[in-house]
Amino acid sequence: MNRRMIFFMIGQVLEIVAALLLLPLVVSIIYHERCTFAFLITILISLGAGLALTLSFRKSSGVIYAKEGFIIVALSWIILSAVGALPFVISGEIPNFIDAFFEVVSGFTTTGASILRNVELLSKGMLFWRSFTHWIGGMGVIVFMMAIVPSQNDRNMHVMRAEVPGPTVGKIVPRLRDTARILYLLYIAMSAIEVVFLLAGGMPLFDSLCHMFGTAGTGGFGIKADSITSYSPYLQWVITIFMLLFGVNFNLYYLVVRGQAGLALKSTELRCYLLIWLSATVIIVINLVSHLDLGLGVAIRQAAFQTSSILTTTGYGTTDFNLWPQLSKTVLIILMFIGGCAGSTGGGLKVSRVMMLFADIKRELRHLLHPRSVDIIKFEGKRLDNSVLHSVNSYFSLYVVLLMGMILLLAFDSSDFETDVTAVIACFNNIGPGFGAVGPAANYADYSWFSKVVLSAGMLLGRLEIYPILIALTPSTWTSRNITTLRDRARQKAKRIYHKHHREE
Amino acid sequence: MNRRMIFFMIGQVLEIVAALLLLPLVVSIIYHERCTFAFLITILISLGAGLALTLSFRKSSGVIYAKEGFIIVALSWIILSAVGALPFVISGEIPNFIDAFFEVVSGFTTTGASILRNVELLSKGMLFWRSFTHWIGGMGVIVFMMAIVPSQNDRNMHVMRAEVPGPTVGKIVPRLRDTARILYLLYIAMSAIEVVFLLAGGMPLFDSLCHMFGTAGTGGFGIKADSITSYSPYLQWVITIFMLLFGVNFNLYYLVVRGQAGLALKSTELRCYLLIWLSATVIIVINLVSHLDLGLGVAIRQAAFQTSSILTTTGYGTTDFNLWPQLSKTVLIILMFIGGCAGSTGGGLKVSRVMMLFADIKRELRHLLHPRSVDIIKFEGKRLDNSVLHSVNSYFSLYVVLLMGMILLLAFDSSDFETDVTAVIACFNNIGPGFGAVGPAANYADYSWFSKVVLSAGMLLGRLEIYPILIALTPSTWTSRNITTLRDRARQKAKRIYHKHHREE
Repeated sequence: MNRRMIFFMIGQVLEIVAALLLLPLVVSIIYHERCTFAFLITILISLGAGLALTLSFRKSSGVIYAKEGFIIVALSWIILSAVGALPFVISGEIPNFIDAFFEVVSGFTTTGASILRNVELLSKGMLFWRSFTHWIGGMGVIVFMMAIVPSQNDRNMHVMRAEVPGPTVGKIVPRLRDTARILYLLYIAMSAIEVVFLLAGGMPLFDSLCHMFGTAGTGGFGIKADSITSYSPYLQWVITIFMLLFGVNFNLYYLVVRGQAGLALKSTELRCYLLIWLSATVIIVINLVSHLDLGLGVAIRQAAFQTSSILTTTGYGTTDFNLWPQLSKTVLIILMFIGGCAGSTGGGLKVSRVMMLFADIKRELRHLLHPRSVDIIKFEGKRLDNSVLHSVNSYFSLYVVLLMGMILLLAFDSSDFETDVTAVIACFNNIGPGFGAVGPAANYADYSWFSKVVLSAGMLLGRLEIYPILIALTPSTWTSRNITTLRDRARQKAKRIYHKHHREE
Repeated sequence: MNRRMIFFMIGQVLEIVAALLLLPLVVSIIYHERCTFAFLITILISLGAGLALTLSFRKSSGVIYAKEGFIIVALSWIILSAVGALPFVISGEIPNFIDAFFEVVSGFTTTGASILRNVELLSKGMLFWRSFTHWIGGMGVIVFMMAIVPSQNDRNMHVMRAEVPGPTVGKIVPRLRDTARILYLLYIAMSAIEVVFLLAGGMPLFDSLCHMFGTAGTGGFGIKADSITSYSPYLQWVITIFMLLFGVNFNLYYLVVRGQAGLALKSTELRCYLLIWLSATVIIVINLVSHLDLGLGVAIRQAAFQTSSILTTTGYGTTDFNLWPQLSKTVLIILMFIGGCAGSTGGGLKVSRVMMLFADIKRELRHLLHPRSVDIIKFEGKRLDNSVLHSVNSYFSLYVVLLMGMILLLAFDSSDFETDVTAVIACFNNIGPGFGAVGPAANYADYSWFSKVVLSAGMLLGRLEIYPILIALTPSTWTSRNITTLRDRARQKAKRIYHKHHREE
């Protein structure tokens, strides 16, 4: 294992965190807040550790294999969250480290689950940092690093693949660095447009920025105790639409920018995603109108907002949907599993993965009836490779197994069934609010430190799509010099000799 | 599609039902009960319909393809349940047909979920019939038919495969009919042994028979309002052990009978099954002792009984585990999904399937780390074919999708989340009691007729492992003369001509 490259890249991540912390620092200075101090100390610690690592290992080179890619991403995210939690602890605004860690993991993973009983007590600087973590985590800190740090080479595909969600990762353009840049430029452009729309509706600049961060990263941290409830219907609709937009695969926006909007609209994943959203909204509107004393207009607005929020795994709320009739709640729970499109900032299983699972079920049924038939599954016009289908299936099994495991671990805390189950679903799928005692009007404060650690792990597992964290936590990853690696090295050597010979000839 | 053969075999099933109904008829005559009349009428209807079908289609012949196999099994089970419900309706003991149908489906599928508020109000004849359906459904009515009806040929493998649970179905001996006979002889022998043990503990003969039926089929219908609670500790232990025994793959018992007990004990599925049972029991014992005011002996007895009951998907109870602490409840819920071994009378996913899912996850992780490595998964000493693994994965996806679908449909009834979720889990996995309003001390009476139909479908889907019911309910199965069938026929014809030529030469 190329440990030196791992340390080097983690050093770079720490430097980036120090740079990113400058933003909340500026905010706290503008508002003359006491927490300025906490940001300064954290920046110094992060920068110091980062420089120490990058300078010590600056001569590192060599191949980054899949294994290193997973480990770099997993460790980066864990360290990122630990460092990101420091300002809260140092300033004393969230004195307990586990609580602060939970809050920041929830931020970076774009979950939006909070242990704060009253978010309005936080200083502006902290509120800004908390929301800003959503924005960074949404597109990914490693993708960000690749977009700006010049020394990265295309071998880093393994690292990027480990961070970007979805069953398959495609480069938009041949060069990885350009792909990362395009993604971030699109992200920044859309974020800016949302801020303009929010400002136009009379939302103050600070509120607009924080809510934009939460929407863009599909995170869901708000700055008010009642989330988005107290904002005007216009602002609620703006956020509804932007949540939906940020749940779409960013590759499609690149198509639009390149003038191929028609091609983008033909995406089956996009169509399926919109269809799911529309169906869920219609069911809930009917259910709400027939059970609660709501006007049709209000019901449509509330339903559309909540389905956007849950399907894209954002987690904002304009009403306490814990009080909705059971059918609407069950629809929302099912949406929790689906999540946004692949290559978006949304969490969950991803629409394309769900579509592939269904396609595979259909093929299995056909195969049972006609054992000799050979079926080809097509997705977005291309033939789906069997190995991709198999990976999606394995991923799903692992997903369910981990879900069960976390529900079991949470049972040690002895809460009720609905709370435990939806807490795990909401954290693992990076949504935020669940039902029962972790409903939209409640928070995760009452869980023990053990459960908070379990749920933090769940959020990281969900955001990084399980494998990086699982591989980094497997002891054998760190100890074994297994046969395959040795074989790989032998092959590399053979290749080098071969190329040398060719050059000589 | 070979409709004539389908009708012919369903006719045979109806005749068998008429024969099986003779047993409760005798019981009701012995106890001089009014319900004798109801059994007589049902026998006449069933025999009449059966004879009409078998006589009309007695000249049927031809190939039974996988499709016909699925349809025969699905229709047989639905018709079986409808006819089996008649005695309850005719006698007026369960006047509503949907209720009676739910109860009998619950019987045949060995679920044991009941809509009866007080089971002790039923006549002895009805109690006997209700429990007897467990015994028939456990090993399978079609397997029974194959064991006794002489005219069946080995083409019926497709039919048997559709009824016997587990990821793969192996014939124990080359001839299918002998396999079916061996299975039923082992089943009868073990059932007889259990009755002897129960009688030895002072349980009356009628009670012993009914509880044996419930244990052997891993069904769970009792004849007392408090299930097994009021019986002696000795009897509770006998039932605990026999539930576990009936959750084991019957092929292993055949090995034991043939003197290869050592080989049977080497089964990895058996070992895993016992390990799961033991771990769950230990966790629950510790949890019970530390939370409830129970002696260690009582805690062990209660925990062992309940884990056996839930893991094997029987559903008997010796205590209201709805009142247990959350951790114990969550452990039970996880056991609900696992179920018994393949080729046993138990339901659920089956231990071997769960093991294969884990093996596949492990392989996928290895594959991610070493993309060029080719891993072979072994199971019970044999190499697992990729197509079997893929089928298990697809089955699991379909299983989860249907689970979600049923939870959604049940939400229309507006019960609470725990009740809805565990009702679906308990019915789909053929267990019986869930938690909340469908806990072991409660019943399914309060659900609407719509939910009862959904849950009945769930029980059938679970017992027949989804595909038969799904295929029978797909309209295209009945209408399309698709290309594959035509191609198959062409091939058959080519084969016949080829063989004719060879003989002539």
